Amino acid sequence: MRPSGRAPDQLREISLTPGYARHAEGSCLVAFGDTHVLCTATVEERVPPFLKNTGQGWVTAEYGMLPRATNTRMRREAATGKQSGRTQEIQRLIGRSLRAVTDLKGLGERQITLDCDVLQADGGTRTASITGAFVALHQALAPLVQGGVLARMPLTDHVAAVSCGIYEGTPVLDLDYPEDSSAETDANFVLTGAGGIVEIQGTAEGAPFSEAEFLSMLALARDGIGRLVALQRDALGLG
Amino acid sequence: MRPSGRAPDQLREISLTPGYARHAEGSCLVAFGDTHVLCTATVEERVPPFLKNTGQGWVTAEYGMLPRATNTRMRREAATGKQSGRTQEIQRLIGRSLRAVTDLKGLGERQITLDCDVLQADGGTRTASITGAFVALHQALAPLVQGGVLARMPLTDHVAAVSCGIYEGTPVLDLDYPEDSSAETDANFVLTGAGGIVEIQGTAEGAPFSEAEFLSMLALARDGIGRLVALQRDALGLG
Amino acid sequence: MRPSGRAPDQLREISLTPGYARHAEGSCLVAFGDTHVLCTATVEERVPPFLKNTGQGWVTAEYGMLPRATNTRMRREAATGKQSGRTQEIQRLIGRSLRAVTDLKGLGERQITLDCDVLQADGGTRTASITGAFVALHQALAPLVQGGVLARMPLTDHVAAVSCGIYEGTPVLDLDYPEDSSAETDANFVLTGAGGIVEIQGTAEGAPFSEAEFLSMLALARDGIGRLVALQRDALGLG
Amino acid sequence: MRPSGRAPDQLREISLTPGYARHAEGSCLVAFGDTHVLCTATVEERVPPFLKNTGQGWVTAEYGMLPRATNTRMRREAATGKQSGRTQEIQRLIGRSLRAVTDLKGLGERQITLDCDVLQADGGTRTASITGAFVALHQALAPLVQGGVLARMPLTDHVAAVSCGIYEGTPVLDLDYPEDSSAETDANFVLTGAGGIVEIQGTAEGAPFSEAEFLSMLALARDGIGRLVALQRDALGLG
Amino acid sequence: MRPSGRAPDQLREISLTPGYARHAEGSCLVAFGDTHVLCTATVEERVPPFLKNTGQGWVTAEYGMLPRATNTRMRREAATGKQSGRTQEIQRLIGRSLRAVTDLKGLGERQITLDCDVLQADGGTRTASITGAFVALHQALAPLVQGGVLARMPLTDHVAAVSCGIYEGTPVLDLDYPEDSSAETDANFVLTGAGGIVEIQGTAEGAPFSEAEFLSMLALARDGIGRLVALQRDALGLG
Amino acid sequence: MRPSGRAPDQLREISLTPGYARHAEGSCLVAFGDTHVLCTATVEERVPPFLKNTGQGWVTAEYGMLPRATNTRMRREAATGKQSGRTQEIQRLIGRSLRAVTDLKGLGERQITLDCDVLQADGGTRTASITGAFVALHQALAPLVQGGVLARMPLTDHVAAVSCGIYEGTPVLDLDYPEDSSAETDANFVLTGAGGIVEIQGTAEGAPFSEAEFLSMLALARDGIGRLVALQRDALGLG
Repeated sequence: MRPSGRAPDQLREISLTPGYARHAEGSCLVAFGDTHVLCTATVEERVPPFLKNTGQGWVTAEYGMLPRATNTRMRREAATGKQSGRTQEIQRLIGRSLRAVTDLKGLGERQITLDCDVLQADGGTRTASITGAFVALHQALAPLVQGGVLARMPLTDHVAAVSCGIYEGTPVLDLDYPEDSSAETDANFVLTGAGGIVEIQGTAEGAPFSEAEFLSMLALARDGIGRLVALQRDALGLG
Repeated sequence: MRPSGRAPDQLREISLTPGYARHAEGSCLVAFGDTHVLCTATVEERVPPFLKNTGQGWVTAEYGMLPRATNTRMRREAATGKQSGRTQEIQRLIGRSLRAVTDLKGLGERQITLDCDVLQADGGTRTASITGAFVALHQALAPLVQGGVLARMPLTDHVAAVSCGIYEGTPVLDLDYPEDSSAETDANFVLTGAGGIVEIQGTAEGAPFSEAEFLSMLALARDGIGRLVALQRDALGLG
Repeated sequence: MRPSGRAPDQLREISLTPGYARHAEGSCLVAFGDTHVLCTATVEERVPPFLKNTGQGWVTAEYGMLPRATNTRMRREAATGKQSGRTQEIQRLIGRSLRAVTDLKGLGERQITLDCDVLQADGGTRTASITGAFVALHQALAPLVQGGVLARMPLTDHVAAVSCGIYEGTPVLDLDYPEDSSAETDANFVLTGAGGIVEIQGTAEGAPFSEAEFLSMLALARDGIGRLVALQRDALGLG
Repeated sequence: MRPSGRAPDQLREISLTPGYARHAEGSCLVAFGDTHVLCTATVEERVPPFLKNTGQGWVTAEYGMLPRATNTRMRREAATGKQSGRTQEIQRLIGRSLRAVTDLKGLGERQITLDCDVLQADGGTRTASITGAFVALHQALAPLVQGGVLARMPLTDHVAAVSCGIYEGTPVLDLDYPEDSSAETDANFVLTGAGGIVEIQGTAEGAPFSEAEFLSMLALARDGIGRLVALQRDALGLG
Repeated sequence: MRPSGRAPDQLREISLTPGYARHAEGSCLVAFGDTHVLCTATVEERVPPFLKNTGQGWVTAEYGMLPRATNTRMRREAATGKQSGRTQEIQRLIGRSLRAVTDLKGLGERQITLDCDVLQADGGTRTASITGAFVALHQALAPLVQGGVLARMPLTDHVAAVSCGIYEGTPVLDLDYPEDSSAETDANFVLTGAGGIVEIQGTAEGAPFSEAEFLSMLALARDGIGRLVALQRDALGLG
Repeated sequence: MRPSGRAPDQLREISLTPGYARHAEGSCLVAFGDTHVLCTATVEERVPPFLKNTGQGWVTAEYGMLPRATNTRMRREAATGKQSGRTQEIQRLIGRSLRAVTDLKGLGERQITLDCDVLQADGGTRTASITGAFVALHQALAPLVQGGVLARMPLTDHVAAVSCGIYEGTPVLDLDYPEDSSAETDANFVLTGAGGIVEIQGTAEGAPFSEAEFLSMLALARDGIGRLVALQRDALGLG
């Protein structure tokens, strides 16, 4: 029934490749099917002005898409001279999601910037970005703990994300682009490893949706995110 | 228990003043307590390029805040030369919410722009904007129906919005700024008059939240939005 | 003879409402007939770089217009990414006018920013802004004097402004939009309470004007500004 | 008494060199003492959108200053990415002044752009620009009349400009930079050959000024502009 | 002697992977050692305004670098709001180089945009971009020839590029970043398959260089580019 | 054979006028025939951040063109809000060329900014700029040496530049605009007084060019630059 032929609760093929980028302190190439995002984590010994002398660190994110990541070429944001509303919305979401599991006091006065650049897009770029950025963040922090710069890993839990939708009346997990563009409802869920909710965004694309539909999507997401967290653990060698 | 002394399920004092602006086709000054937003609706006989010759119209929104609407002065976006990510996120939300109850084919090839300008801010500016923009939109469309330009009112239902939060462990309705800045969780709900969900945005500010907490907030929102829709009907004289 | 039916030397109905904005140190909603401007004054304990360590303060102004303050919607300057030449010209004029009656040394190293935002426009927005901004400025300074931060009120006089024009050959006071758009000549006058000239701007819209015409306009302005200063005194309770 | 040693009613040495630029349809290098401005006039067979199909033409102006035209280097506006408020104010003034003596209907649907670029600045750049731009404009139009494209010269009169000020209590003509920066009052006058007033801008730099002071400045300006118009006629060979 | 241990005339390990991007008409992931660039070619049935109705096509290029492609993070150009001078210089060079071997009349009124995005940088990003962009361009054009849209392949020859330098007095081929940053002289060569020179850029980083040094670099480049062209042919299956 | 009637190895009429600008520390009006560029040198007692506390100075350049320096008017870069790729490419080239002969350590922690503004263009504006900027730079440094601020002139040699091209099959020196626009190949050469190569930029406009053609152009350039350096010495009175 799904254009992809997947079962309603089936994720696309997921891969997480830590250490993909040579220069960054942490990195992860994440694939949710044909959606490929390169996530890098940069550690800097400085914080934004509002955190100076607070002893507290910061985690922030930037998001971009190569002009031909999509089916038709989009104008390059560097050439148009500004980031679109969509880009800003997504990078704010990624930053909030990662901060939700970061002990900012434990991080000390340093900033981690997560760059999520979409090399190829097929729906779900923001959820893939959050899922991959967690791996890059963890990889960037590990040497600080091992080297004794930080007393303990300043992450309180895993965080991962997935989209769900109502497609032809059925709740389905992890929309690809063809499903996304014809779904009646589209929702993004960001959950922790323990199942706590970090962020929910649900939007009726056509008719409004009901509480029951929303709860079926949440149940699918909870299950899918459990599997994504297991894949994060594998990728990071956390047993 | 709430800083405002309100009961958990109590809205702030709400007022909706249609026709506040002299020049606009539709307008509404909306107050949610000390949050005051001037919403205007402008009707233009043209559509964005992607809708040319489709017979379909468009509803879009822009959002702004006077520099001293807030407790400390913010830089004027016209002077900095760009709209912040927050501004763009809010105006995209307002536009989507209003389009969700508009019959764009019934509107014909015309565009309605809803300008929501915050004169004074005390939390909940985006939910007040959506609630007031609906009144401005309705007021702008009425003469088109009365004048026979449109065969019927191209609105499929009311739409209104309210925020909820978990404040000191208790779910509460319609956060003002002091509550908003110390709530553990903050969620915005956009519902139709019939109770359908148009948009949900929930964010954990501190610890992740649970499904049960989320459902209590949704119940509060459903009740509050029912009252906001009644106030919209009063303001528009819809009996 | 005037579209408005007013006598040549008749002001529109003027109102000055101090304290209109809840958060600002000083504020005034000023109405010159259907022209409504919200003026706020923000006090900050810092000065522009060129005044650092001079013991001297600064007064500056910013001006904006809501997109639908006018009969047809204008593009939002925050969205276009720059302030128009007209906006910059007006905000520079407001700043100069208020500085002309401010004792900048007496103010000490602090800056007052006057934001003048036009909620509704019907001609004369710059002169209404100057007249209202004086009230906001005075209101912002009073507590500093009362609290002993300043030894005395650092204002040397009142300042107010009005436009005049030659309309169908007759000099008239305080042009509204219909008069402004068909006047042969348009002039703005900024005077002090004592009648000193702070700024004069006269422009021939059609044929050049004569010295005699200019002097009749100045006489009208002098009289009108006398009445505006009296209204400022009333509004500020200065007896 | 004047830093320049000039009499109060004495202009600086003025020169007007038409045809200075090889490529432009009209041009004039104008010098008011050490203030040197290169004015060029470009004729284009198109008009701004608001004049399409009205049979009417347009005259507009742009103003710039080389970064090291002044005593200390100013940042290049092309590098900062925007024109300052001062630049926009001046170029709007130049455009209005030239349009005041142009028969826009007689010009037909074409646009003349006057570029005034300050090569060296010593006060009075805007008045020198207007005076020189008239010569460039005339030079650009003459071949259109000679070639029969235009039935007659679409200029109704000359236009020229000069500044005046109150310097140490005395009204003086044509301020250079040292005078300008210490004058109590600064005024710019734009007059036609017949003595009609096109634009007046008077600003109190220190104490407000009186009507009598203003009128002495106007008398000085009227006399100086008479001489500037004679020099324009000489430069254009109008006998 | 070289930091990389390579012989003076030795290229880094080169790989060209055509068809790397799923959505683009043509693409190539090119690696010159640790420098990795993703090149995509987009075909559009439109040309820039200056070519409308000339029957001629256009080839243009855009260049970007992921923020963490380099050893320290660079600010994202989309966030700073403009492309640097270096970026513009490089993308202009890529465009000129590819146009030099394109029969623009044979291409017809269509535009090919080559996007070269550096995923990882280790020196020579512009020369890798040109070499890979040719493969992407060829791949995008082939189906137009096969499908009969074009009568023949509108490419007159191959084009490829490589850098050379004088490193510790010795001319060397294909600089990586450590070599590039300490070379006395840095030159980029763009040559056709037949050995014609398309573009030469030589810059003395320290002392000026001599004609003899320049000619040794050119000889190295000629040899290296011969090998790059052979690799392009392999990658494109041109036997 | 050349449109200009010059011999293949003949420069245009060259003039170098040092001290043309009144306010700058150094200046030179340079003419290569009808190409006229005003070069000014500004000395500032500060360096860019990356040179703070290194004891080393900096030389940088900015380039601009008056809108009507060319045959048809170009949009003013200050009005469009950004410098074109061409402008940035040229100003980077001028800066590199002058730094190549400057002893930056000997200059101490100060910055020289060379502004090259094209008043009139007829081809070769970048090479005229470099040649004139050297004179302005020398003039700005001389008083620092004479006044004992610098122990010796921090210039290691002269630097000058000229363009060459292949015009109708013949290598020619110093292209003017008509030659430049129809030459098959265009190359710019920047050489020191001693004949060392500082920068070479060669571009095939039509067919690729050969090594032999390139070497003939280099020989022409070497000869022409020798004459330009002699003219620089004359202009600076260096005997």
